[in-house]
Amino acid sequence: MSNLALGYDVGRAAAAVCCRPLGEKELSAADSERIAAMFKALSDPVRLRLFSKIAAQPAREACVCDIQDVGVSQPTVSHHLRKLREAGLLESERRASWVYYRVTPGALSVLAGLLSQAA
Amino acid sequence: MSNLALGYDVGRAAAAVCCRPLGEKELSAADSERIAAMFKALSDPVRLRLFSKIAAQPAREACVCDIQDVGVSQPTVSHHLRKLREAGLLESERRASWVYYRVTPGALSVLAGLLSQAA
Repeated sequence: MSNLALGYDVGRAAAAVCCRPLGEKELSAADSERIAAMFKALSDPVRLRLFSKIAAQPAREACVCDIQDVGVSQPTVSHHLRKLREAGLLESERRASWVYYRVTPGALSVLAGLLSQAA
Repeated sequence: MSNLALGYDVGRAAAAVCCRPLGEKELSAADSERIAAMFKALSDPVRLRLFSKIAAQPAREACVCDIQDVGVSQPTVSHHLRKLREAGLLESERRASWVYYRVTPGALSVLAGLLSQAA
């Protein structure tokens, strides 16, 4: 992604510092705040579906023009994508007339690792 | 857990039917509703911390009497535990004077599998 990327570093920061699986060690209050914000972004059905549409694309990247068929208005789609970006789950980049979104590297694996069962 | 268990079957139902990793296939609208409800239960920092306290115990089970030190009132703890139970993430059982909570078998692995990266 170029230096035009609009994404936040929340997801990458979480990947750097956090977390051992929930089955191994309880979360600190600070980690709970950060991780709960990521879960909150996935807690709306339309937002989760938008995120899954992007995650299922090659390179986990999609033009906003290709993911709008989720039964809500375009401004609502934009609102949900912004929430996902603010939580660090997506990064975005403008290319000509369209904005492209991609899954923040490491964001999914942070959450998956957290939820994975201890061996 | 005995036949006194108060847990819901949401988590077990989700485990039975859902879902391939987000990186492989986008979620249906119906699966998005069900899974978003589980993420919503984890989207509050105190609730997430309570859940992590239980998940980190041997057998992923704890007496409510041992997990109340999260800086909120006892009724608030009860409220959060009820939300986690309603989402299918916890099951509960009364033993004498205390209620015990445990992580619904399969609930964590459903979410972890969903978030895991495609190989």
